[in-house]
Amino acid sequence: MKTYLDCFPCFLQQALRIGRIATEDEHKIKRLLDEIGMMLKDIPVENTPPETAMLIYQKVGEIIGNADPYKEIKNETTRKALSLYPALKKKVEDSPDRLMTAIRVSVAGNVIDFGAPRDFDIEKDIADILIRDFAICDYRKFVSYLNRTDKILFIGDNAGECVFDRILIEELKKPVVYAVRDIPVINDATYDDAVQAGIDKVATIISSGTKAPGTVLKTCSEKFRALYDRSDFIISKGQGNYEALSNGNRPMFFLLKAKCPVIAKHIGVQDGAIVLKGINVKETH
Amino acid sequence: MKTYLDCFPCFLQQALRIGRIATEDEHKIKRLLDEIGMMLKDIPVENTPPETAMLIYQKVGEIIGNADPYKEIKNETTRKALSLYPALKKKVEDSPDRLMTAIRVSVAGNVIDFGAPRDFDIEKDIADILIRDFAICDYRKFVSYLNRTDKILFIGDNAGECVFDRILIEELKKPVVYAVRDIPVINDATYDDAVQAGIDKVATIISSGTKAPGTVLKTCSEKFRALYDRSDFIISKGQGNYEALSNGNRPMFFLLKAKCPVIAKHIGVQDGAIVLKGINVKETH
Repeated sequence: MKTYLDCFPCFLQQALRIGRIATEDEHKIKRLLDEIGMMLKDIPVENTPPETAMLIYQKVGEIIGNADPYKEIKNETTRKALSLYPALKKKVEDSPDRLMTAIRVSVAGNVIDFGAPRDFDIEKDIADILIRDFAICDYRKFVSYLNRTDKILFIGDNAGECVFDRILIEELKKPVVYAVRDIPVINDATYDDAVQAGIDKVATIISSGTKAPGTVLKTCSEKFRALYDRSDFIISKGQGNYEALSNGNRPMFFLLKAKCPVIAKHIGVQDGAIVLKGINVKETH
Repeated sequence: MKTYLDCFPCFLQQALRIGRIATEDEHKIKRLLDEIGMMLKDIPVENTPPETAMLIYQKVGEIIGNADPYKEIKNETTRKALSLYPALKKKVEDSPDRLMTAIRVSVAGNVIDFGAPRDFDIEKDIADILIRDFAICDYRKFVSYLNRTDKILFIGDNAGECVFDRILIEELKKPVVYAVRDIPVINDATYDDAVQAGIDKVATIISSGTKAPGTVLKTCSEKFRALYDRSDFIISKGQGNYEALSNGNRPMFFLLKAKCPVIAKHIGVQDGAIVLKGINVKETH
């Protein structure tokens, strides 16, 4: 997905939000905004938004000197999510279609996002998503591709959300490689966050190599790109990965909640919608 | 009111909104955003936000070459407001406290604002405001100061809103000077807009001399400043005038709907609240 004009004010908004998490020093935050303001002219609209978000995040480190301002928040969210695990797991086990319910649980976890422009209330939002209709639901294709694959590349998104992904992974019944960001960026999941969520018990965790809050392939490691190129069944969580991979060429299912009007429009759904959308997948496989 | 950090992303958002009204050429709008981005570092937080909004608006003229992009919108809003005039006038005439109802009508007109970050629906919003409680209501002081003045300085805000102000002016029963912006800026009322609304029938219209979307005194004409300095009863409509005059030293009543969280917080009310707030006014006069 390219950068839309609406993204430019939002970049500044993101910088302000991250800046305020990283420091209470208003002068430093003002300097951050000044620098991001000057950077805007050099951002080509052809770039995907997570590439720019990566640059913003690097500036936070440079100017404010805090490379992982969301560390405590991520930790806390994962702990909160782990406390919800038993009840959600039971919900899946008690449901008539365990896989579908697990997909719902995983997308419900995508409400956890400190990079998006809105606040969230984990428990309330999850309860809502568990009963809401998907705006796009390529479930039949998902099942068809799942049945025929012998390995799954699952690209994670935010810390905390990993716990919900784990519930989905447990229902996939196939070997899963779970990809995370290389270093902390906003509240995105890194290796440590995935381990804290218990993903290591159900999948092989790898770093995609990216420092961006989205799997921008040109910023990923060669090893990850090779894995991506070989994958015939990819699950991609969240907006950042959608922005980075919506033009991807592999059979891929985006599982996300649209939390920004620009992305919602690009997908073709209402802002706030939940989506399971396949690309490069045929009706029958 | 000073410029808060939250205002910086909002400046870019404003530029985007105005740019889109002024042209369909995305390249020009991108250039506008680039220039505003570079400008941000030079904006002192001590400035009031309308001073910056003025610079943004000048950039729109320079880059997009449209000095009055809201002309048609202003015209249309005034015509719409005029069509509501008879019913609102009757509402005032039928009410037990005509002045209070006229104040409500005037603040209801303040929903018309293409500079604020939200959409509005004139008829629905007005119906709502006519029955809503004021978050701050210095009505007793207002009446006390009104009774003892022999002239009123009424500082207008947006085109269209003037029609609603006219209804209030008609209930004030004192000579009114109605101040407008010197040249078009966003959808703020100029001399022509005030005349179209029929203000010339009930008050003397003058330009404050400002090119900003708010009565920033240092940008006003000497003539207006002298009038301001002599005034002992000022009604100031809307957010732009509040931002510019909240530190003013004259007896003044701000009449507005808070349409931005930063301004709402500065006033000490919830976002969306309606306010009649006196400054430099004593409890008994």
